[in-house]
Order: sequence, then C-alpha cells, then structure tokens
Amino acid sequence: MGVIWKGKIMGDSALANVRNKDLSHRKVKMTIRVTDREGRAVSGKKVSVKQLRHDFLFGCGAFEFIPLVSGEGGEEQKKITESWLDIFNFGTLPFYWGNFEPEEGSPKTQLLMDTAKYLTDRKVTVKGHPLCWHTVCADWLMKYDNETILKKQLARIDREVTGFKGVIDMWDVINEVVIMPIFDKYDNAVTRICKEKGRVGLIKTVFNEAHEKNPDATLLLNDFNTSINYEILIDGCLEAGVPISAIGIQSHQHQGYWGAEKLYEVLERFSHFGLPIHFTENTLISGDLMPEYIVDLNDWQVDDWPTTPEGEERQAREIEEMYRILFSHPLVQAITTWDYKDGAWLGAPSGYIRKDNSHKPSYEMLKKLTHEEWWTDTEVVTDENGFAEVETFKGHYMLSTDEVSTEADFITPGEVTLR
Amino acid sequence: MGVIWKGKIMGDSALANVRNKDLSHRKVKMTIRVTDREGRAVSGKKVSVKQLRHDFLFGCGAFEFIPLVSGEGGEEQKKITESWLDIFNFGTLPFYWGNFEPEEGSPKTQLLMDTAKYLTDRKVTVKGHPLCWHTVCADWLMKYDNETILKKQLARIDREVTGFKGVIDMWDVINEVVIMPIFDKYDNAVTRICKEKGRVGLIKTVFNEAHEKNPDATLLLNDFNTSINYEILIDGCLEAGVPISAIGIQSHQHQGYWGAEKLYEVLERFSHFGLPIHFTENTLISGDLMPEYIVDLNDWQVDDWPTTPEGEERQAREIEEMYRILFSHPLVQAITTWDYKDGAWLGAPSGYIRKDNSHKPSYEMLKKLTHEEWWTDTEVVTDENGFAEVETFKGHYMLSTDEVSTEADFITPGEVTLR
Repeated sequence: MGVIWKGKIMGDSALANVRNKDLSHRKVKMTIRVTDREGRAVSGKKVSVKQLRHDFLFGCGAFEFIPLVSGEGGEEQKKITESWLDIFNFGTLPFYWGNFEPEEGSPKTQLLMDTAKYLTDRKVTVKGHPLCWHTVCADWLMKYDNETILKKQLARIDREVTGFKGVIDMWDVINEVVIMPIFDKYDNAVTRICKEKGRVGLIKTVFNEAHEKNPDATLLLNDFNTSINYEILIDGCLEAGVPISAIGIQSHQHQGYWGAEKLYEVLERFSHFGLPIHFTENTLISGDLMPEYIVDLNDWQVDDWPTTPEGEERQAREIEEMYRILFSHPLVQAITTWDYKDGAWLGAPSGYIRKDNSHKPSYEMLKKLTHEEWWTDTEVVTDENGFAEVETFKGHYMLSTDEVSTEADFITPGEVTLR
Repeated sequence: MGVIWKGKIMGDSALANVRNKDLSHRKVKMTIRVTDREGRAVSGKKVSVKQLRHDFLFGCGAFEFIPLVSGEGGEEQKKITESWLDIFNFGTLPFYWGNFEPEEGSPKTQLLMDTAKYLTDRKVTVKGHPLCWHTVCADWLMKYDNETILKKQLARIDREVTGFKGVIDMWDVINEVVIMPIFDKYDNAVTRICKEKGRVGLIKTVFNEAHEKNPDATLLLNDFNTSINYEILIDGCLEAGVPISAIGIQSHQHQGYWGAEKLYEVLERFSHFGLPIHFTENTLISGDLMPEYIVDLNDWQVDDWPTTPEGEERQAREIEEMYRILFSHPLVQAITTWDYKDGAWLGAPSGYIRKDNSHKPSYEMLKKLTHEEWWTDTEVVTDENGFAEVETFKGHYMLSTDEVSTEADFITPGEVTLR
C-alpha cells in the first residue's frame, strides 16, 4: 500500500499502473548505418548510442542563473546551477515588467541576455515569462492614458521578442487573463487596458505583435485557472485566429497535490484543442500545506515554512506520479517546476533542493525518471549490410564506434550514417 | 418599510430611488406641425398625441396563441390571449426542434406561421426560440454521424429563417452554449456536434447561416449562465466575428428574486460589450420558492405548486423593481416574461394570470407601468407658426386633430406634419 495523502496519492497497485503507461509516443525508431571512408557497409560494428538531451522539455525556473551570471553568489551559486543543469534542459527566465524595467527606459536587457546565453550555451531552451501581466507590472505605466499604455505594451513586446530572437524563441505572451480585467487587489495599467479591450481583444493584440516580430517563436497563453472559463477563453481565441502555439497550465499545489483524477480530467479537457500543452509552473511542496481557505496564494505569508522528512517523501511520490502521468500524455510537451530551491516564492519548501543546497528525494526521483528510466544509453551492432535498428527516447544523441562519432537528433524516424 | 424578501427587496425609500431613475433614453422630442390643405400653418390647433405601442419590447411567452389559432381552447383561449395583447407587444414562439419536427420531414411550419401572422397582424413582434439547442432536440438526428447532424442543423436554420422571413425576423439562434458540450443528462445530437466543433466554432457556424439567410434579422445568443463563463464566451464570439445582434439573458428566478444588487451587477458586466441586452426568459413566482439545492430547475417536480396571496404581493413588487431597473438601463431593449399563465413550465405559479385566468397583482402592476406610467397620452396646441413640441416615450403614435389624423413612429427626434 502506498503513501496515503488526502486520498489522492494512489496505492502501490495504482501507481504500478501509472508506471506501466504506454510511452511509445515518446520514442522513435532510428536506423544507424556504418560505412568505411569509401562508403562501403561495415558489418558487425558496435555502435554506442548515448542520449545527450531530451526532446521533451523538462524545465525549471532558472532565476538562479541570474546571480551566477552577474557574479553574485560565487561558488555556492555555481554548485546550485550545476546540479540544476544535471536534470533540466529547459529554463524559465523572469521578464516581469516591473522588475525588468523599474524605471522607464532602463530595461535590464544585458543581464537577461547574458543569462539566457549562458543557458543556451549549455543547450538549455529558454522561455521568457511573461510579456504582459497585471501583476509585477510597471507602476510608471499608470501615469499614461489607456491608448498610450497599450502602445507601450506593444513596444515592450516588440523590444523583447525582437531583441532576444535566436536566444529566446519561446514566450509566455500573456499571463492569467481569466482574472485580468476583474483583478481588484490594486490598480495597474494592464488591468485597465484589458477592461477596455476585453480579454480576447487584448490577447489577440499582444499575440499578433509577438508573432509578427518572431513568426517562429513558440507563443503561450498561460493561466492558473483550469476551469471552464479558461477552456472558453482558449476556444474564443482560436476561433478569433490568435496564433497560440501551446496552452500553458499553472499547477501551484501549495494547498495539496491535485491527484491523478484531476490531472487526467484537466488533460482531457484541454487536449480537445489539439494544441501542445505545457505545465508551465508546477509546485509540489515538502512541508505543511497552505490552508484551503486561502484563495490568492500570495495572501499566505509565514515567517518560516520548513521542509520535513515526511513531506519530502510525499513530494517525491507526487513528483513521480505527476510526471509519469504528464509524460504519458501525447500532447504534453513540457513540465516546468517553478522553484528549484526551497524558500523562493512564498518561502515555501517547494524546491528540489533544500535551503542548504542538499538534494531532496524529489531531486533523486526526477533525475532517476529523466536520466535513467526515460533515457537511452545502449549499444547496437550493425548487420551484414552495415545497418542497425534502435528505438530510443526522443532527443539528441551521440553515436560512436571505436573509430568515429557524430551527434544527431532522434525525433522523427530516419537514418543516420556513421562514416 | 417595504416588503422584506430574503433581504433582497428594497425598502420603500430604496424603491423610491428606483422609481426616480432617469428615463430620458426612453423618450424622444418630436415636433408636430399642422397645416391646412394648401400647406399653410395652422396655429392654436389642439393635437391629440396617443401612444399605440412601445418601441421597447415588453414581451411574454406567446405559446398560448398556438391553441387559439389551431382552434383549440375556444372562448377561454380567446379571453386569455386578449388580456395578453392588452400588455405585450412582443411574443416568443416555440421552435424546439424535437416538437417542431418530431418526425424528420414533417415540420409544423403552417401552424407556427399562422400563429406568428396572427400576432404580427396585431402588431406584435415575434421571436422564434430556439434554432439550435441540446434540450428538446430531435431524437431522430442521433442516427446520423456528426457531419450529417451539422448539415441538417444548418438546413433547419435555413428553412426556418428563410421561410419565416418578414414574419419572424428575430431568433434565439443558439441556446445555453456554456453548458452545451458538457451537458450529460442524456445523449443528444447537438451536444455531440458542440463537443466536436467547440462552443465558439458552433456558435459561429449557426450564426453565419442565420445571418446569411436573413441579414436584417436580430440574432441572439441566449443563456441562463450569467457568470464570467458567459462573458468570456461572448467576448470570444465577438472577436471571432460572430454577428450577434443582442445578448440574451435568462432570469428564471424560481429559487428567489435576484434582487437589485445582482441585477445591477449583471447589467454592468454585460453592458461592456455595447450590444443591446434582452432579458429573454424571466420568471418570478407567486408561491413557495424552489429549494436552493436544486441545480437544474427541471429536476424540481411537484404535484401542486399553488399561488398564494403573500406570494402574489411579493411577485408584483419584484416585477415592479426588476422592470424599473431594466427599463432604466439604456442597453436593455426587451424583457420577456416566460409564462403568461400559472402552471406552465414546471407547474410553477409563474404567470401574470392564475389558473382560473384571473389577473394577479403582477398583471396590474405591469399594465400600470407599461400603459400608464411609461405611456404617453397627451394633447398639445400649435403655436403661431403651426408647430407644437412634445416629449413622449418612444413608440408608435396616433396624432389627431378634430379634422385629420395620422400614425407615426416616435423613435428618433424629428418632425411630423398633419395636413
């Protein structure tokens, strides 16, 4: 019998079922051919097939790379980011307008560019988050009228999407639109223009701007609302021709794990659109849960929110179940855990590493899944015609014999020749 | 102090406030000119200005006219419909597909056409309800595949909108779409195609069909859901170019009057779109309320649901307050009470007349509002140049002197000459 957690974690037999899910959509059949320098087939040749990276985006907030790149944090920051790089191939960098450009005209472009390049140099795909949001919005915008605010919002999108093109080609274009026009905690410029243009009207305008500036970019709509509201919003956007590349779903579970049932239900509802699904902001905590009566997670302010041994065991189990369920769904293309280290957002024990930088069971669990169970490291031998067939997890590979080696993407079925 | 009803009915002072709402948007300033046969101004002439009809659509379910026209019901039915005609200038006729065409190919076109013409002959504007809905849907559709169902749905829209053009130029095109694809009480053809096409996709398709067949028709989207779901749905439809003429809002209040606060709140949210608003299906009952735990009103089945004297007093007050609030809002163009007579839908005491056909206080209240307080019947005298100015409630008027008379629309400011 498994760990019982609010009745949501499955027993061992049910978890075994999740463990046995079909993953054929995550795999690809490749043909490897080995020839000599003259192009003649070489038979009986051993070929090592080593995965270097996943095609699937295993992501995490990459905010930790900013102090590293700016020279703060020193050796400790280096150690943290290296263990980050041991698991993830996908990182989210913060572009909150209010922080990115606290004074009009002085954006932190260079720091973000240096950080993004540090990551892409290490083959990490980078996403910018977000280009338009009512929270952490630039206060200086509020002195303008709505028409000017919208112009500045579009100019801001132009600046970031154009300026980072080739380094960052994936953006959370607009965040939490379901609540955007009725957000009433404080006045802000983006709620004002959303009220005026309507939800779909604003989404359309900002997406069109981003798409025009980088037609190849992956553009996400992102929300924590997973109700019928968000479904209808997406439906309306698609019918209105908004160029949404992928649906972003937040899953901050400070108040308890959603459980398999809700995950399957959310996947079913949002897969109707046929678009890729990204779990953009995932949180599972390893301490006491936030009380259920809290509606806006930001309202929960505690002095200390410790990680606990039982909580860490629970978190690892939840990570296992949730990642298995999402990885088994063909439309899910990315899962991003929000906090890498405990004590980040809301001070929660929400990370893969503790405040002392030691690895939690969840870290080991995710590393085992992503770099052992769902990872290909094998050897094949060519037949009499110099061919070898191999089925691998989709990703980027190093192929080598005792004489030559090459790197190749294994994503769609095909043939690779080692010569 | 007023009648207290769940804390929702206002006290007398608050009601007085509702009574004093600005109604200038319901009025029009007209110039009347009187000349002799040669066109010379006639001064000092008395002109009687008598309202014949409202521009505002005061509506009611007009199902009672069907048995009248088909010859059932006799004198009693005649009496019922005559008292109906004493108040209303707008009637809803049923086009539920399952009843209108119980067997494929045998629609009740003639009966509905005769009934609609009976009403239009009496200057009643007629609306057809609805062209597409998952409830009371034709069962015979279910033997077809989705592609065929959609074709037949569009052919059905074509047939009704084209066939009734000039008699019925207003349609509830599609009904209750928020719930449509997730309606799971029973299988039906429309839920199937809505699941496949998505909400906005289906709305767009059926509206485009109706609009193409009668470009001048008033086309409504109609829903009982007044939450953010419906707002987002409308937003998406408008951004997707759906030709919605007016927003239909149902208000079946079997579980208690919404109250002024909710009415104002709903009006505020749905007026953002700038479209006319129709209260399409209003119910206020004069007996015991339906318990709040009932979610689908159709689940409440009772043998007897009597009207009571206290309930009738309450209903009349609620009618007064609600109609005053809606009439005072510039975007509201129509209010339709669903049942004219008690014991219709759900057997509820929801009518203006009792089962014995006697008038309830609500009947007298609405008649007083529509035909006394908001009604113009006056006399003016021409000045030395033969002109007289008059401000009236918008509508259709009979103007007469002791010698001549004419009928005219008083809707936009202008001049009318009596010669």
